[in-house]
Amino acid sequence: MLDSTSTPSTPLLKDELDIVIPTIRNLDFLEMWRPFFQPYHLIIIQDGDPSKTIKVPEGFDYELHNRNDINRLLGPKASCISFKDSACRCFGFMLSKKKYIFTIDDDCFVAKDPSGKEINALEQHIKNLLTPSTPFFFNTLYDPYREGADFVRGYPFSLRDGVPTAVSHGLWLNIPDYDAPTQLVKPRERNTRYVDAIMTIPKGTLFPMCGMNLAFNRELIGPAMYFGLMGDGQPIGRYDDMWAGWCTKVIADHLGFGVKTGLPYIWHSKASNPFVNLRKEYNGIYWQEELIPFFQSATLPKDCTTVQKCYIELSKQVKVKLGKVDPYFNKLADAMVTWIEAWDELNPPSEAASPAEIPNGSTK
Amino acid sequence: MLDSTSTPSTPLLKDELDIVIPTIRNLDFLEMWRPFFQPYHLIIIQDGDPSKTIKVPEGFDYELHNRNDINRLLGPKASCISFKDSACRCFGFMLSKKKYIFTIDDDCFVAKDPSGKEINALEQHIKNLLTPSTPFFFNTLYDPYREGADFVRGYPFSLRDGVPTAVSHGLWLNIPDYDAPTQLVKPRERNTRYVDAIMTIPKGTLFPMCGMNLAFNRELIGPAMYFGLMGDGQPIGRYDDMWAGWCTKVIADHLGFGVKTGLPYIWHSKASNPFVNLRKEYNGIYWQEELIPFFQSATLPKDCTTVQKCYIELSKQVKVKLGKVDPYFNKLADAMVTWIEAWDELNPPSEAASPAEIPNGSTK
Repeated sequence: MLDSTSTPSTPLLKDELDIVIPTIRNLDFLEMWRPFFQPYHLIIIQDGDPSKTIKVPEGFDYELHNRNDINRLLGPKASCISFKDSACRCFGFMLSKKKYIFTIDDDCFVAKDPSGKEINALEQHIKNLLTPSTPFFFNTLYDPYREGADFVRGYPFSLRDGVPTAVSHGLWLNIPDYDAPTQLVKPRERNTRYVDAIMTIPKGTLFPMCGMNLAFNRELIGPAMYFGLMGDGQPIGRYDDMWAGWCTKVIADHLGFGVKTGLPYIWHSKASNPFVNLRKEYNGIYWQEELIPFFQSATLPKDCTTVQKCYIELSKQVKVKLGKVDPYFNKLADAMVTWIEAWDELNPPSEAASPAEIPNGSTK
Repeated sequence: MLDSTSTPSTPLLKDELDIVIPTIRNLDFLEMWRPFFQPYHLIIIQDGDPSKTIKVPEGFDYELHNRNDINRLLGPKASCISFKDSACRCFGFMLSKKKYIFTIDDDCFVAKDPSGKEINALEQHIKNLLTPSTPFFFNTLYDPYREGADFVRGYPFSLRDGVPTAVSHGLWLNIPDYDAPTQLVKPRERNTRYVDAIMTIPKGTLFPMCGMNLAFNRELIGPAMYFGLMGDGQPIGRYDDMWAGWCTKVIADHLGFGVKTGLPYIWHSKASNPFVNLRKEYNGIYWQEELIPFFQSATLPKDCTTVQKCYIELSKQVKVKLGKVDPYFNKLADAMVTWIEAWDELNPPSEAASPAEIPNGSTK
């Protein structure tokens, strides 16, 4: 129903979308994205030493926040925002007042499609977010709402309206998003396969959500996009987006929202250091074996009708069931509560999605 | 791990695979597929008037069965095999003694990939069946076992072995597999999008399985591939493959096997008549709204450790829960039992997969 090649058909949503970037170490990054990003407001969250300054090129509409700003704005609640880790980006999600968020890493550049055309990643994310998702039944021709596609024979008609899309998860050409062990074993592997598909991740299925190239509907799912406690002083790193993804998927499934993955691609320019990554990841690789069964079996009671209520309930379950895996999860569960308190402080409930706006499509 | 472009790396499996075709109305069909099909044994099941003869070109190793053969071989149990409908193809699945089956319709021709190379559909199906599936967690870079791909960061290591693949569901360029209403509304729609992906359909998720371009491991899942009662004397058509797909998916999920969809593409040459299709489908379109919730909530007890046991159990649930939708489902439930009896007669249990061979990976 949407044409993936024509620009005019996609609303720009420039007053409804913020771009959140965790630090910018590379000035080429913004120059390369200028034609696509300049219409939007940028929120840059500086993850390290606040005395260092980030130079943003002329012509961009932006706000830049460092650790001092986080501490000033959140006071003691600033403890829930990671320091010296790109997980701090979620502070930008909280600050934004827009309906949609696109977040991207500064080592992600504009990719080209197989015809050689530069991919407007943001435009594709907007298309993904503005069309419904189909989490209750699998469509073999992928996204049925794309131009030239539809629901195939055998797809129940009652499910063809779909549900609102909460998340659009984009992919990466060149350097794939591998964990440290896979990076070490396959240092030369590059992703060269352009898969021309967008699909809904079925209800009840978890996925590894990567924060490199990600968009979401902040009104529908924003408070679930907490990137946890990583980096300085924490026993784990590189699980910030994964944690957000698992919580988000459980809550989206419960509230009847959809999560899409596939297009758009960005060009991931460089692999991070696998030895450093291994140090950050080793606990997560181990803990993950218990986290996945936890999230796979997590259920939320019917009276959890807002993302905030769902998230608080999930934090309780984290404490009860994961606290015994490692004391870190008790700290994380507390931080989850602090995060919601801080979110509601910066986004007074009247501005956030009210329960009445959220269709309870859950069949769980 | 497998190279999708090099032929020699894929075993031909010529002594382990049969090609099952329901009737051949078009002699070009076999000529076009000759370079790919000639090494294999063909089982052709003629769906209409047994007095008509199908001329198979020279050089093919084949057996041809018409209604008289079905009646002779199955006696009164022949009632479970549809007449004047391509659903009769499942008789070929029962007759075969091979480990793998590939089934294809006679209006499906060799497609070309975006580089213009003819696609060896059978080779891709074999690759799909010989590599594991990953039904318990979603991999965002699609099939992790393909050349140039792997499991992404955040994919639990304990799940990376995958599970045996039972089904490989291929897709169609040109004429998409639409139902009659969609055909009527979009008569000119053609599928031109080549999506270079294979993926596992997650556990617990149903999909519309199309029989046009389908391969499966007969030892793992064969007895679930019953195409129901369609065609002559039945109130429904064009739900044969759907029925088989829903039963197969529920049983594969229970027994811990995987189902893949995506590559290979075939070229679907012509759309069937939408008016005729509508007459065949209208009951199915209506009943389907009750069938999907039935299959979504169907659970099988732990002592169902073989496909046959699962299928008999499912037939009982069909009778209890769908018999009230329409008396047709009582007849279908009986036919499901007859089908298993006939299967076991032609495939004495010692030849079929023994319970010990089936890993019970179910976590349901």
